[in-house]
Amino acid sequence: MKLISGGVCAAKGFLAAGIHCGIRKNHDKKDLALVSCAVPAAAAAVYTTNLVKGAPLTVTKNHLADGVARAVIVNSGNANTCNADGIEIAEKMCALTAEALGIAPEDVLVASTGVIGQRLDLTPIEAGLPKLADALSPQGNGDAAAAIMTTDTVAKEAAVEFTLGGKTCRLGGMAKGSGMIHPNMATMLVFITTDAAVSPPMLQKALSSDVSETFNMVSVDGDTSTNDMVTLMASGLAGNPCITEEGEDFSEFMKALNTVTMALCRSIAGDGEGATKLLECRVTGAPDREIARTVAKSVICSSLVKAAMFGSDANWGRVLCAIGYSGAAVDVTKIGVAFRSAKGEIAVCEAGAGVDFSEEKAKEILLEKEIDILVSLNDGETEATAWGCDLTYDYVKINGDYRT
Amino acid sequence: MKLISGGVCAAKGFLAAGIHCGIRKNHDKKDLALVSCAVPAAAAAVYTTNLVKGAPLTVTKNHLADGVARAVIVNSGNANTCNADGIEIAEKMCALTAEALGIAPEDVLVASTGVIGQRLDLTPIEAGLPKLADALSPQGNGDAAAAIMTTDTVAKEAAVEFTLGGKTCRLGGMAKGSGMIHPNMATMLVFITTDAAVSPPMLQKALSSDVSETFNMVSVDGDTSTNDMVTLMASGLAGNPCITEEGEDFSEFMKALNTVTMALCRSIAGDGEGATKLLECRVTGAPDREIARTVAKSVICSSLVKAAMFGSDANWGRVLCAIGYSGAAVDVTKIGVAFRSAKGEIAVCEAGAGVDFSEEKAKEILLEKEIDILVSLNDGETEATAWGCDLTYDYVKINGDYRT
Repeated sequence: MKLISGGVCAAKGFLAAGIHCGIRKNHDKKDLALVSCAVPAAAAAVYTTNLVKGAPLTVTKNHLADGVARAVIVNSGNANTCNADGIEIAEKMCALTAEALGIAPEDVLVASTGVIGQRLDLTPIEAGLPKLADALSPQGNGDAAAAIMTTDTVAKEAAVEFTLGGKTCRLGGMAKGSGMIHPNMATMLVFITTDAAVSPPMLQKALSSDVSETFNMVSVDGDTSTNDMVTLMASGLAGNPCITEEGEDFSEFMKALNTVTMALCRSIAGDGEGATKLLECRVTGAPDREIARTVAKSVICSSLVKAAMFGSDANWGRVLCAIGYSGAAVDVTKIGVAFRSAKGEIAVCEAGAGVDFSEEKAKEILLEKEIDILVSLNDGETEATAWGCDLTYDYVKINGDYRT
Repeated sequence: MKLISGGVCAAKGFLAAGIHCGIRKNHDKKDLALVSCAVPAAAAAVYTTNLVKGAPLTVTKNHLADGVARAVIVNSGNANTCNADGIEIAEKMCALTAEALGIAPEDVLVASTGVIGQRLDLTPIEAGLPKLADALSPQGNGDAAAAIMTTDTVAKEAAVEFTLGGKTCRLGGMAKGSGMIHPNMATMLVFITTDAAVSPPMLQKALSSDVSETFNMVSVDGDTSTNDMVTLMASGLAGNPCITEEGEDFSEFMKALNTVTMALCRSIAGDGEGATKLLECRVTGAPDREIARTVAKSVICSSLVKAAMFGSDANWGRVLCAIGYSGAAVDVTKIGVAFRSAKGEIAVCEAGAGVDFSEEKAKEILLEKEIDILVSLNDGETEATAWGCDLTYDYVKINGDYRT
């Protein structure tokens, strides 16, 4: 398995494009992305658990009922959520896309991201779609990744090459992250493509199982979005024997998927709104996975831990505090905590109590851009990892007046 | 029932004092508080549900086993939590206090607040206690309230006068708030005194019932502290017939208690770390109380709602989003949202969708220092209120390097 470039265009059969159509006022910011597949692709998706759901999710869910899709259309700048006629607008976006591509509207998936509660004007989308369809290319992945960005500062892409049944396969994706990131049984906007042949049920199984270890373990600000969605489309053009059940090929496919989603998770967390640091909390020695996950996520979500990491302050009491209120049944007197980065590792707490450590060394470690918070529960063999970012002045600045 | 001054000294029989003994380096910041009662007082308490618990909580719980107490000793600057010998240190604090006052150590309650995981040095406390005991006075409430402050910017006190069985009674309290505030079946540090005669079981019943509507509905930053504690001591010196069961007198007592705790809640939320605004979320029309509380607290805890309020931005989509992920079973299509302040009230969402409103008027309303977020679920008759504050640059600044 090797990392390659190409994002959503890495896999055979997929083209992408991204343009500025006019949903956003800033002409330098692309706001409409399209990914298309040369053949009907097996497709799967997971969605936010927020009861307030964006209209595009309802439409995508309906169009995915047959497990097949040909294209994904995505706009940024407006979430098309909490509007009286959101569903009609999302359906119309699919119809316009289908018309431009000469495919059926039911084979188009749709997603939107941006401000909630403002009507999405179809005029710029209708005008832009022919241009967008014309721009589709095997090198369009970067433009598409740029077009789905909101407050993201960098485009988020990842792709891998792997082998199934002697055939070279590829899997790649793009993500939009940054704010309102606290996935729960679903995630932010992520679009993944592969040329591996996988049946729709196995594709859904792979995706649902993967997100619980990856996107559901990311939190930027504790706010679960209304528009979270991950889609996975498989063209089958790699020519491998179609995966229709669990086994060696499925495991290999899962590994490829996990490599890409993990990379996207780290990109999303590290580029969280206002973030200066990527935080990874790795919990080991847990009695079961649920406890490991709960503890890791509680630490990564703590505003106080996040602010301490921004200040490069080895305030491990806040880590212990976040473990204590996580709701997980842990034995506090067994817990160990250490901080790690490229500059080294330092133990700060053992058996639930502080140990002497060099504040100078701790500062040096915590001044790095990627920090691991290592928690040993010393009460079992299971582990879990969660990703997040520090809490900074810029998070407040970005969110103090997002709409204007 | 009328509001009076006097804080923890308002009720007959209680004296208080607060001094700088040297736990904190800053000589201008008091760090040791004492409240004493002239007679053995009926006493009750509630504690944090965090599994990581400060040693003082264990000791206080033991000393309260008989429902009687004579004094409360509190230090700021160090939480005496996650230390190998924390319990011994907390016991010794009680013993030193008992010695200075000539009472039994088992009649002393103890609380600590400050940094977690650093050993609490008893030397300054031992040296300071005789001076602290000498300073006890009926006007010492302000000094005591100042001595329990950490990052608080104002001392928090409240008191009321009311009548039970023809006798004038008083009830007053002080609180420390500011950060790591997200009580769960317990709360921050709060000490309440009354001269009403109430049996220990009824005192506990009153306190436990009150906190679920008051302190448990406050959140500054979503972090539940390891040292949360509320104590309530009743001297009985008002001479009313002792309350030993539910009835008119108990209801009146509950009303007095609720008036004081509600005032302290608003003080704590409005003085949250870095806060520029007090936020109150009032949920009405809920099918049951649990749903009303869950929704109110979810809105008040949302980083995105808090940041929008800091920026005086009427971004109601974030309010709806927070309701949607709260976990409460709500009908999104029935929800109404309005913002209110001294400058007026403005409806921004009806039946789950946006309504036209004047951004100018909304800005004028949201520029005020006290903002009400009004949520109508239109699905029942129950209501609940939660209190919080905005998320500001200063929250990040205060917590980026708290220990140094």
